[in-house]
Amino acid sequence: MKILDKQQIIALLDLELATLRIEEGFIAFSNGKVQVPPVQALAFNAANGDCCIKTAFVEGSDTFTVKVSTGFYDNPAKGLDSNDGLMLVCSAHTGQPLALLQDQGWLTCMRTALAGRIAARLLAPRKVKAIGILGTGVQARMQLEQLMPVSDCRRVIVWGRSDKELQSYQRFASELGFEVHTCKQAEHVAREANLIVCATPSRTPLLKAEWLQPGTHITAVGADTPGKQELDPALVATADRIIVDSLSQCSQYGEVSHALKAGLINAQQLGELGALLAGRIPGRTDEDQVTLVDLTGLAVQDAQISRCVLEFVRT
Amino acid sequence: MKILDKQQIIALLDLELATLRIEEGFIAFSNGKVQVPPVQALAFNAANGDCCIKTAFVEGSDTFTVKVSTGFYDNPAKGLDSNDGLMLVCSAHTGQPLALLQDQGWLTCMRTALAGRIAARLLAPRKVKAIGILGTGVQARMQLEQLMPVSDCRRVIVWGRSDKELQSYQRFASELGFEVHTCKQAEHVAREANLIVCATPSRTPLLKAEWLQPGTHITAVGADTPGKQELDPALVATADRIIVDSLSQCSQYGEVSHALKAGLINAQQLGELGALLAGRIPGRTDEDQVTLVDLTGLAVQDAQISRCVLEFVRT
Repeated sequence: MKILDKQQIIALLDLELATLRIEEGFIAFSNGKVQVPPVQALAFNAANGDCCIKTAFVEGSDTFTVKVSTGFYDNPAKGLDSNDGLMLVCSAHTGQPLALLQDQGWLTCMRTALAGRIAARLLAPRKVKAIGILGTGVQARMQLEQLMPVSDCRRVIVWGRSDKELQSYQRFASELGFEVHTCKQAEHVAREANLIVCATPSRTPLLKAEWLQPGTHITAVGADTPGKQELDPALVATADRIIVDSLSQCSQYGEVSHALKAGLINAQQLGELGALLAGRIPGRTDEDQVTLVDLTGLAVQDAQISRCVLEFVRT
Repeated sequence: MKILDKQQIIALLDLELATLRIEEGFIAFSNGKVQVPPVQALAFNAANGDCCIKTAFVEGSDTFTVKVSTGFYDNPAKGLDSNDGLMLVCSAHTGQPLALLQDQGWLTCMRTALAGRIAARLLAPRKVKAIGILGTGVQARMQLEQLMPVSDCRRVIVWGRSDKELQSYQRFASELGFEVHTCKQAEHVAREANLIVCATPSRTPLLKAEWLQPGTHITAVGADTPGKQELDPALVATADRIIVDSLSQCSQYGEVSHALKAGLINAQQLGELGALLAGRIPGRTDEDQVTLVDLTGLAVQDAQISRCVLEFVRT
C-alpha cells in the first residue's frame, strides 16, 4: 500500500484530469451508477469534535474510496488544525488497500473547488464583469484559483467580516494577477460581480435577490451540513435555473432546502449537475438568466479525485 | 501515524488486556454508551466481492476506530486471500489518525474468538467433558485456542466436511495438547461435548435439539450476515438461557432471528452479553441448563481490540 502525505498529493494531482474525473463522477451519480452508503457520523461532545465517514464506488471503476474527515474545534488552542482527514483507496477487483492519502482534508477542499470550476464553466455568463467571492478562507481562495482556467476575468471583489482577513485575501488574489476590491457589505459583491462564489460557513443569509444583476451566476458551496445558509430563500426562488449536486442531499440541507421548506420553489425546478453535464437538462439559455448551483459535496467527488491521484502514481 | 502490519500486531497484542477491553466494550454497548453508526456496505458484483465499513466510539475512550473489511471470493484463484481488512484508530480528543492497523482481518478473527472465550467463561458447565468444535477453519482454530485459558478440558471433538481439513485440524489441536476426535456427523459432537462452539459459514442448521446433553453450553459465531444459520431453531427454543451480543443485530440475522421469526421464542427471553457481564441479568443458575450465546460481531469489539493494540504500542 502506498502512503502519501499532503505535499506529495499536491505535487502529484493533475487538476485537469481531476476535473474530468469529477465531471464523470457527477454524471455517474446522476445516472444511479454510484454506490453511496449512508454517511457515518460520530459526535465527540467532550472534545467539541465530530467525524464523518463517506464511502463511494463508481460502478466500473478500478477503485473505491473511504474518506474519514474530522473537525475538532478546540484544536487550534492546542496548535493543531481544526480539520483533518484522509482517504483510503482500495481495489474494486481484489479489495486490497492500494493507497492511504493523508491529505489532511486538502483533497476535499480541492474537489469542492473543482466542482465550483465545473459549475462556472457550464453556467457563467459569457461576459464576466467581475468575480465576486464571499469568504476569505481556504475554500474562498481555492475557488478563485479554480475559476482562472474557465474565465478570463481578472477583477475580483471579495467580501469578509475581518479587515485582517480581507487584506490577506487581497495579497493572495493580487499575486494571482487580479485587480482586487474588498468590502464588508455583501451587497457590493452582488452589485459589481456577475460570477459569484459563496464560500463561507454562514448560518444566516448573506445575499439578497434584489441586489443581483441580470445574468449573474452564483455557486454556493458553504451549506454542507444542516443549519448552514448563505443565500436568502427569495434569491433562490428568483433564479431562472437551479442546479444541485444531489437532489436528495440538497433538499435536506443545501441552500435550496430553505426555499423548498418555505414553499418558494418546488422540487421539479431542480436539476442535478450530472444531468446538466450529460446534456439531459438545459443550462443557461439566455445571457440575462440568473443561474444558481448549490453544492453540498458528494462522496463520489472523493472517490474520483482520490482515484485520480492513484492513476498518476501508477504511471 | 503509526503503521503496523499483521505480524507486528500479533506480536504486540496482549490477549488478557484485549479480553478485558472487549468485556468493557460489551458492557458499554449494552449500557448505550457506544456510538455505532449504521454499517456501510458496498457490493462488487463483477468481482464477486463485498466491503463493509464499521465504526465505533466508546464514550469516554481516548480513541475511535474505523474498520474496513473486504471479501473478494475470486481472490484465491489470483493467489490472494479472500478476506482483507484494516483498522484506522483516531484520537477522540483531536481527531488525528493515530494508527493504521493492517491486520488483514486478523483482529476481527481474534475479537470474535475472544468473545467466545468470554461467553464460555460466563456460561460453560463446571465440568467440561469434551469441547466440541463445528468447523475447521481459522475461526474454529482460534476459538479452541481461546477456550484454553477458561477450561481445563483438553479433549476436543471436531466436525468438518472434508477429511483433509479434519486431518489438518487434528494436527493443529494435537500440537496444542488436545486429545482429538474428528467426525463428519455433527450429532457426534453434540453427544460427546458439553461446551460447543459453532464456527462455520453454514447456511443450513447443523445441530439439532434432541442431540444435546443437559448442561451443554453452545457459542454460535457463524451467523454474522443474513442467510447464515448453524442451529436448528428448535434447539434455540429449548435453550434455558439465550444470550446475544446485540439484541437488535441478532434479531435481524443471528441464530435467534430464525427462532424469533418462527415464533418459537420471543424477544423477552433474550439478554445481552454486556448485561450479563455487568451482572444485570442472570447467567447459568443450574448445571443442567442448556445455555446459548449468539454472536454476530459488534463494531465495539473492533474499537476495543484496536485501542488495545495502541495502548501497548505507547508504553
